[in-house]
Amino acid sequence: MAKKAGWTTPATESLRASTLGPIADFDPESTPGFDGDRDLGAELLTERGEVLADLQELLFANGRSGDHRSVLLVLQGMDTAGKGGIVRHVGGLVDPQGLSIKGFGKPTPEELEHDFLWRIRKAVPPAGRIGIFDRSHYEDVLPVRVHNLVPQSEWEGRYATINEFEDDLVATGTTIVKCALVVSKEEQRTRLAERLERPDKYWKFNPADIDERPFWDDYLAAYQAIFDRCDSDAAPWYVIPANKKWFSRLAICELLISALQGLDLEWPKADFDIEAQKKRLAESV
Amino acid sequence: MAKKAGWTTPATESLRASTLGPIADFDPESTPGFDGDRDLGAELLTERGEVLADLQELLFANGRSGDHRSVLLVLQGMDTAGKGGIVRHVGGLVDPQGLSIKGFGKPTPEELEHDFLWRIRKAVPPAGRIGIFDRSHYEDVLPVRVHNLVPQSEWEGRYATINEFEDDLVATGTTIVKCALVVSKEEQRTRLAERLERPDKYWKFNPADIDERPFWDDYLAAYQAIFDRCDSDAAPWYVIPANKKWFSRLAICELLISALQGLDLEWPKADFDIEAQKKRLAESV
Repeated sequence: MAKKAGWTTPATESLRASTLGPIADFDPESTPGFDGDRDLGAELLTERGEVLADLQELLFANGRSGDHRSVLLVLQGMDTAGKGGIVRHVGGLVDPQGLSIKGFGKPTPEELEHDFLWRIRKAVPPAGRIGIFDRSHYEDVLPVRVHNLVPQSEWEGRYATINEFEDDLVATGTTIVKCALVVSKEEQRTRLAERLERPDKYWKFNPADIDERPFWDDYLAAYQAIFDRCDSDAAPWYVIPANKKWFSRLAICELLISALQGLDLEWPKADFDIEAQKKRLAESV
Repeated sequence: MAKKAGWTTPATESLRASTLGPIADFDPESTPGFDGDRDLGAELLTERGEVLADLQELLFANGRSGDHRSVLLVLQGMDTAGKGGIVRHVGGLVDPQGLSIKGFGKPTPEELEHDFLWRIRKAVPPAGRIGIFDRSHYEDVLPVRVHNLVPQSEWEGRYATINEFEDDLVATGTTIVKCALVVSKEEQRTRLAERLERPDKYWKFNPADIDERPFWDDYLAAYQAIFDRCDSDAAPWYVIPANKKWFSRLAICELLISALQGLDLEWPKADFDIEAQKKRLAESV
């Protein structure tokens, strides 16, 4: 029997933005570093999901025991790229109590009265949690840049501000994993069309999504800029091909596992005398 | 082949506090209304979990479309009764984005400066969400009553305050499902002992849990009081036998399904012209 295929290169290497070349040439149908089909992907996701769940519990246990570390998954992507599906199908692999999920839509009037990181800082994950940002501070250099919602002089400065913010986060114990889900323009058309065909999907459709399609190349340029300027070993950007949903889920599960393994966690030691407590319990009514 | 067993009486009836008689006589090994074993329970949980997930998505979709309703699951129970397991294994059945989970520990100094409902009000689920309270405002008439942490004259008044609070919540669109997980005193000893045997469980052990065991009957009396005074059709209390974890999970899944079905939700109608949008999409680059 032939050797079972799978990851030929770790996802942390095969999907790292800085190694992938121009985003404009990227193939959203591809599965970089992975040699296998949908069935194998689904099987592996179940298997690796258990590993992720165990690591999440370990992180949570340490958070309860005074360790201040956390993990933050930042999700960006064009409409229909599947950010919500990642929250559901990758986030859904672990104890929901250990998650801290925050979606960032259009800023509210109150949020606009503050600097762009104000709402982000309030939402960083507490100790022991896996935070998930469904959109993030990168919105402020993606649609904001594409449409010049603030003057270029202002958004130009944000890349450096973001890098400083993320450096601070890392320094205070948050491991950052940034994933850009990349869907093809044709696949987006198919997915939007599906939302218009199925009454159980109407609620996900927003006419404004069509308005953005003519700006596709500008968005790719804006993504290229964040990869060029905000991809560092401390807070890496990964490019996730998203035409095949099974692959994007498996890939992000692997990236989270890798981030959690990097924390080298162990079960917290007992902060009580184990034998004395056993005796007390045995003697208790 | 014999007819497959299962629920003989709906969980909403068989587990309703007011129909079950004194809590002191309740058998935590029992499975009221359910005729089946662990294997059937596990099989049903998977099957019914999908129903729950679909209903949760429907609730979420409506929340996104202007419906203000929500569901709130209140979990109470002695230590080791399995509240965390319910969050993980029942909450884990649905999209984590649709959950709003809040645990209530010992009140902080800031919380103690406010009335006992202050921290509760801040945590009620937003529109479209399933909220889960891991402990709740009932702590203020359970340990607080057992140990007279406030004078009796004060905790006596809280039952009425709680009823008013819950009536308001229901009136503003929150469906409340209250579950008391009841474990036997011997089973608690077994579970505490396990936490003292396994290094991966030490972090869950708290020596104070043993301190509470001599007050077991006082706790049962305090539970009886909340069932007598705060179980209403609008905000019902259910008693969940918790010695068999597979049963408590299945039972609470059923209670949530029933609560969600009671909302009679449909997929939100499109708030745009479907045909016009299809045309726009087809014509878009």
